[in-house]
Formats: sequence, structure tokens, C-alpha cells
Amino acid sequence: MTKAKKKPTILITNDDGITAPGIKNLVEAVKELGKIVVVAPDKAQSGMGHAITIGQPLRMTKMDMFGDIEAWQTSGTPVDCVKLAVDKILHGKPDLCLSGINHGANHSINVIYSGTMSAAMEASIESIPSIGFSLLDYSYEADFAPARHFVKKIVASLLKQKKLDKHLLLNVNIPSSPLELIKGVKICRQAYAKYEEDFEERKDPHGKKYYWLTGEFINFDKGKDTDVWALEHNYVSVVPVQFDLTNYKLKSQLEKNWKV
Amino acid sequence: MTKAKKKPTILITNDDGITAPGIKNLVEAVKELGKIVVVAPDKAQSGMGHAITIGQPLRMTKMDMFGDIEAWQTSGTPVDCVKLAVDKILHGKPDLCLSGINHGANHSINVIYSGTMSAAMEASIESIPSIGFSLLDYSYEADFAPARHFVKKIVASLLKQKKLDKHLLLNVNIPSSPLELIKGVKICRQAYAKYEEDFEERKDPHGKKYYWLTGEFINFDKGKDTDVWALEHNYVSVVPVQFDLTNYKLKSQLEKNWKV
Repeated sequence: MTKAKKKPTILITNDDGITAPGIKNLVEAVKELGKIVVVAPDKAQSGMGHAITIGQPLRMTKMDMFGDIEAWQTSGTPVDCVKLAVDKILHGKPDLCLSGINHGANHSINVIYSGTMSAAMEASIESIPSIGFSLLDYSYEADFAPARHFVKKIVASLLKQKKLDKHLLLNVNIPSSPLELIKGVKICRQAYAKYEEDFEERKDPHGKKYYWLTGEFINFDKGKDTDVWALEHNYVSVVPVQFDLTNYKLKSQLEKNWKV
Repeated sequence: MTKAKKKPTILITNDDGITAPGIKNLVEAVKELGKIVVVAPDKAQSGMGHAITIGQPLRMTKMDMFGDIEAWQTSGTPVDCVKLAVDKILHGKPDLCLSGINHGANHSINVIYSGTMSAAMEASIESIPSIGFSLLDYSYEADFAPARHFVKKIVASLLKQKKLDKHLLLNVNIPSSPLELIKGVKICRQAYAKYEEDFEERKDPHGKKYYWLTGEFINFDKGKDTDVWALEHNYVSVVPVQFDLTNYKLKSQLEKNWKV
């Protein structure tokens, strides 16, 4: 994007809700790089995956919480926020959509469950280049300064590219380390890692059983080109993501070996 | 699977809820092919994507609605149902997980939003071969007989394979046509199609605006190897699906051209 062009419009959303420190830090990081519009959920929506609201009406309220930056909260999911932004607020497509900064990791298999990444993916489906940012720290008191540094660096360098792939979709995770310890940015593939689930069984005050999801994260992937490896070695991980879920390898195998 | 082996355990779930006709028809279609266990949401969960329940406890209740087949309803999402089934009901992995039969299409981009496919994907992540079935008819009065025919045929032919890929994940969509008009089963790739969103703006009884999601489905993909093409030509579409969302093509491009 050359200097002669007008400032890019940057849509910002998240899944932790408009009041989360993460989105405030994302706005801070990029506000000099474009015209920012914030459209985010009015409450935390973590673990919502690519949920959309079909059976209920949605509300939007204009908020005054980011200084002179236009901001709206909605009653919808992160995906709803992107749809509402394009259709009812911007009345068109922004040049870039940024989602986050998520409080907690969205590397490896987390991309599937992540509301942060779903918002970014929705934008990518709509031909809006898009990035989801996550910090490997769940705490609301987390230090976002190193994250802000890398967010700005990544967004600025992408905006400098001549032409962005309209479906560009990046899953960026940032280690929870002081800036001087972070070694740089690594382009990675998604690690094959998963949660070994466990449900804690409890009894309610009336003696009836209920279950609460817990689980241990296990990385089965020994590759040194994965996001998990990069983060463990104090790199910012960047995984290019796609929404074509076709398994072409399995497709060829089935075409050869499977008769119905 | 040879006759000498014991009957395979087949976990059945859905996203329309345990009382939906679709899951009843799925059970009917495959009950002779294995030991069936049903674990499904207690209410409709359409459009829930890959949502999981983190912030709330989950309930499970044993139900007596499929004759002598073990059945449970849970207060969770389709993904929660798979996790609960493995951890708390089966205490291990079933040989196969089937999800559906969904009331409505899950072809092309719908795979991203679909609770039916998310349940199947969750199973695949857990190394359980898995299939999601959808009928291109939203009506609860839809005729499921042709769908039952193809579900049975597909599941039976897969169970006959020597060894199933442990991450096998198929997105099967069935046209809403009489059996004699359906031409057969086609292995396809996911079409690039999307919804052109529109939100209907309305006013509540107190004069406050609200928005309701509507949208028109548009297929941008002219390929004859896509699921949308197959369904339009009265084939059952089978798309092999994967949960590695890495865009390897974009990864190579960025590795070459992008400096941060």
C-alpha cells in the first residue's frame, strides 16, 4: 500500500468481548496504520467456534470507549460481528480485518474452537484479508506490550505489500515473554496437538450429577516447523490458514480404493 | 471388518437435538451394522460451529426413546456430546462416529458453520473415523427413506474396508429427491460458495432496532468436481474433510516474499 493511497479501513473484533484488555491493546497497536472501526461482542464468547446466530435477533449499540474511534458492541458471536460490520456498519468491505488480541493460545488444534480465529476466517471467506492475534496468557493483567510491538510490525509489513491475497488468513500467536526474549516471527504449519479430555464429575446441592470440562494439552507433533515448536522456542508463530477443508489426499485414496 | 470380528461400536450424535427425525432415521439406517450408542444434545444447536462449553457445567440424562439402544441427552453442544461420550459413557473410543442426519444442507462453506460436521470433526481429531450426514431438506416432515438407503450403503461399505484411516472424516450430503432419481455417490471437493449476507432491520415493540440474519446462497465455483455440482445433478456428495487448516500454498508464498 503506497503513501499515495488513502488510509486503509481496518475492522477490529474479538471473542473476549469489547471490554477485554486484548482488544484495547490491538486498537492501540494499529491505530496509526489505518481508519479503525471496532465491532465486537458485548460479552465473552470464548470456545464459540464458528457459531452464528440464526434463531435470535441481534442488537448493536454504539460505544464511546476508544476515544475518537468508531466502536460498536453487538449481542452476537464474533462471526456475527464481522457480518454485521460489513452489512450494517461499513456498508462494504474493510481493507483488513484484525481479531483479538485473544487472552490465551489459539495455536495448533485451538484454531478449530477459537472464536477469535472464526471471526478472522469469516472475513477471509468474504474476501477480506484477515489476521487473528492471540497472546499465550489467559490473565486479564497480562503484559500486552510485547504483543503490541509484534502486532504493529506484522500489520505494517502486510500493508506495505503491493497486493494482499484477498483470502489471506493468518493465525498469529505470541509468546508470553518479555520483548527482549522473543526471537522473532516464524511462518509455521498447524501442529497436530489436542486436548486429552476429562470431565470432572461433581454433585449439585440437590445431589444431582454434573460435569465440567477439563483437559490436558498434548502435542503429538514432533515437527520443528509447527506453531507449537515455534512458541516453545520463543518465536511469534504465524500459520497461514484456509477455509477449504477438503482432504485432497484422502479424496485421491477414496477415488482409487472405495466402491459404494 | 470381517465377520469374525465383534460388532463395531457406532456412536451417533447430531446438532438438531435428540428428538429430531433426522437422528431417528440415522439410527434406523445403521442399527444392524453395529452396537449403537446415541449421545445427542437436548435441544437444537444448528449454526453452533465447533463450539464447546467451558464456562458452564454439563448435564447428561439417559433416555429411553430408541427401543433397546442406549441413548443419552446432554445439555452441551454437538462437540461436547462427542467428548462426553468418549470420556463418560463409552469410557473409550467407538469404532465409528456418525452425525446427523442433519435437516438441511452442509455442503460447501456450510461445513464451517455446521454443528453436525463439528461433532464429526471432533471425533476425527480424537482418531475416530467419522461421517456427517445431511439431507437437503429443512422440513421436519422430509422423506428420509432415500437418505437412509445411502447412509446404510456408505457405512456398510466403509465397515467392509480392511482398515479405516483413523482420521477419516466425510461430509456426506444427500439430495432431496426420490430414490429412483438419485444417480449415485460422488467423491467431491468443497465448493467455494458463500452466503451473501443481509440483515433484516426491524423495530421491537418499544421502538428499538434489532437485526435478523438472512442471506442468499451463491456458488462462485464453476468446477464439476464440487459437492454443489454433484448435488445439483442429483448425486450424493462425499467430501473428505481435514482438520489441518494450514494453507501450505500461502505458507510457501509468504516464506518467499514476506519479511517482518
